[in-house]
Amino acid sequence: MKIIGPFTQLLPLSQMPLKGALKDEDLVIIDHGGIVSENGKILKVGEFNQLKNEFPDAQVEQIQGNAVAIPGLIDSHTHICFGGTRAKDFAMRNAGKSYLDIAREGGGIWSTVLNTRKATQEELVQGIVERANYLLSLGITTVEVKSGYGLSVAEELKMLRAIKEANNLTKQKLITTCLAAHTLPKDFEGNHAQYLKLIENELFPVLVEENLTQRMDAFIEEEAFDEKVTLPYFEKGKELGFQITVHADQFSTGGSEVAVKVGAVSADHLEASTQKEVEMLANSATVATALPGATLGLGCAFTPARALLDAGACLAIASDWNPGSGPQGNLLSQASILATFQKLSNAEVLAGITFRAAHALREQNIGKLAEGFEANFAMFETDNYQEITYQQGRLMPSAVFVKGEIVF
Amino acid sequence: MKIIGPFTQLLPLSQMPLKGALKDEDLVIIDHGGIVSENGKILKVGEFNQLKNEFPDAQVEQIQGNAVAIPGLIDSHTHICFGGTRAKDFAMRNAGKSYLDIAREGGGIWSTVLNTRKATQEELVQGIVERANYLLSLGITTVEVKSGYGLSVAEELKMLRAIKEANNLTKQKLITTCLAAHTLPKDFEGNHAQYLKLIENELFPVLVEENLTQRMDAFIEEEAFDEKVTLPYFEKGKELGFQITVHADQFSTGGSEVAVKVGAVSADHLEASTQKEVEMLANSATVATALPGATLGLGCAFTPARALLDAGACLAIASDWNPGSGPQGNLLSQASILATFQKLSNAEVLAGITFRAAHALREQNIGKLAEGFEANFAMFETDNYQEITYQQGRLMPSAVFVKGEIVF
Repeated sequence: MKIIGPFTQLLPLSQMPLKGALKDEDLVIIDHGGIVSENGKILKVGEFNQLKNEFPDAQVEQIQGNAVAIPGLIDSHTHICFGGTRAKDFAMRNAGKSYLDIAREGGGIWSTVLNTRKATQEELVQGIVERANYLLSLGITTVEVKSGYGLSVAEELKMLRAIKEANNLTKQKLITTCLAAHTLPKDFEGNHAQYLKLIENELFPVLVEENLTQRMDAFIEEEAFDEKVTLPYFEKGKELGFQITVHADQFSTGGSEVAVKVGAVSADHLEASTQKEVEMLANSATVATALPGATLGLGCAFTPARALLDAGACLAIASDWNPGSGPQGNLLSQASILATFQKLSNAEVLAGITFRAAHALREQNIGKLAEGFEANFAMFETDNYQEITYQQGRLMPSAVFVKGEIVF
Repeated sequence: MKIIGPFTQLLPLSQMPLKGALKDEDLVIIDHGGIVSENGKILKVGEFNQLKNEFPDAQVEQIQGNAVAIPGLIDSHTHICFGGTRAKDFAMRNAGKSYLDIAREGGGIWSTVLNTRKATQEELVQGIVERANYLLSLGITTVEVKSGYGLSVAEELKMLRAIKEANNLTKQKLITTCLAAHTLPKDFEGNHAQYLKLIENELFPVLVEENLTQRMDAFIEEEAFDEKVTLPYFEKGKELGFQITVHADQFSTGGSEVAVKVGAVSADHLEASTQKEVEMLANSATVATALPGATLGLGCAFTPARALLDAGACLAIASDWNPGSGPQGNLLSQASILATFQKLSNAEVLAGITFRAAHALREQNIGKLAEGFEANFAMFETDNYQEITYQQGRLMPSAVFVKGEIVF
């Protein structure tokens, strides 16, 4: 058993509602705070000196100087398992080249598929670990990672096994999602249903057998998969016990309606959502996930985060780190920038990258600093938590703890 | 004399036009490049092995592994001399509070004025040095720094002396600008002309006497100074040999017209500029400076950078790092994000933060890697220069050189 502290400010983010708008006034801030943990779990958070009196036998890990502690951040939507780079695509797109021009030059998502297929499982593992280490430096202690650049049974399996293997090598927890329905592989030209049927018949049983993931995702968009084919695909996954998450409403609407229909845990993107989709999501159990990294990577609209919160939705914020449209990966900076464009309070931003993101992953014991939760937290060298979003990513954690142990 | 290299790619950015749109195809990329320097100046850039043959007596500083070298970056518009923080303002603004609410709570620019006045010159120096060190880590080897939070003769002098002193303590060059005309100090309520007359009569002679700056700036905006009072103020400065730069068209137009009329070296902000102002600037010798840090800090429109370049303007990109509207300070990230929203080529981005920014400061021998220029450059551990903007700030320099010496 140990007590870590004192923290100039400790923000437990416990006892806050899962859904709807939040005011900074509602944030509980413990001055001179401390965290008592045992076997990686939190026993209690409170005032440091009181905790020392209450747990006289606990070992004290003394924090020097200014430190603000918040729950370890959660990036609930990434694609950090991939081969190659799309720096050339990015340059071409910014130089005004069309999607087709880029594809003709060997770019686009298909180039990532080819590079990911070319990579060995070990090379994919190395890439995931490198990127996860960067995310750890931002205070991110849980990372969702999708497959979706394999697009065949064998290659999707290679990706999912790589993520599982990387999870043993990274200091934070990786949560795997099968995104075999990312885009239609070229050899199935036009026959989306046939491809999904193959995935259902040949990939799903192995996912269950090897316990590779409990989550499945599909990109619902004109260029990818439509509502008609994804609905039965998701139903099949649900029968096997998979949680459903959806790439929804990025360029056109439709995806979030499928998400709500199938009871998805989250609908992610939503840049194209109108008030109709906003209200539908708010009135559902599906978390609405904003991905400002895709907005900054493409230069398009932000997810209507303000409207979603005002309508009563549970809003998570994730990085969407991927080689094509979201190459930056800095969730801390992105969430702060989203806040300026969408006018989000600090409470809403912090909730979106902690316990609300945990809810998007249906993880019960992360994202808050409270009894029974994992002792995951990030520490920033400042006396005011407001500096974290204010500095828009310049202020990086001075230390990061996972299960009570310092890992960065 | 020494030769530094080999660089996987060396981008000298020489022989590129000062004005107008640029294509990536026009970038000269020297593979396996090297830089010969002596006494801090570049003698020659070229292919590393050829340079070794041509300068057999030069000492070789061998670079290991992948390295892309570009000219040291130039941040031509900052306010990094200040006291205090505005984290609370930022939180209030994002929580939907009005400018007046924030001022009533003791926030707004006036709070920075009070905190800057409260600070000693030495405290200001320390703040500048810390921020300049952060900018150095981004590859920025020249930084413009404005006064403008003193707003009295004595307090503006304290700021300008602090910047001059900091210049001796920072590894990069600081270029000072007098922004006494930032906002009207409270004791001159409503009498802008009277305040500017005081500055002219009592501050300007000391600036000349102590050689504190060769540059002056004014914030032309409804809330600050109008065209009528700034024109004679600028004319007075010109008589004393000052270069003029203008905070123009941030929220409303008018400023850029003054800038062109007085022959300003640059007009900065321009978020509100219409096609009329765009063409006026393009047809002038005034550099148009985009400040994406203010856009990301406030959540407002981006400077019409694409239209400015297409019309033929010289476009610089600067951070506007300041405690109120631009708290992030990451020019590398901001310029890359501006590129996605405004569709700027890599050549246009790199030009905007190197030789075109140098032109905004009318500095003749920085911003390019060419004979006679200072041997200032940043090195990135990659084999493709496109990664720099693609990673939107995640890829930071592995080394930075000023006058031929490694400083980071």
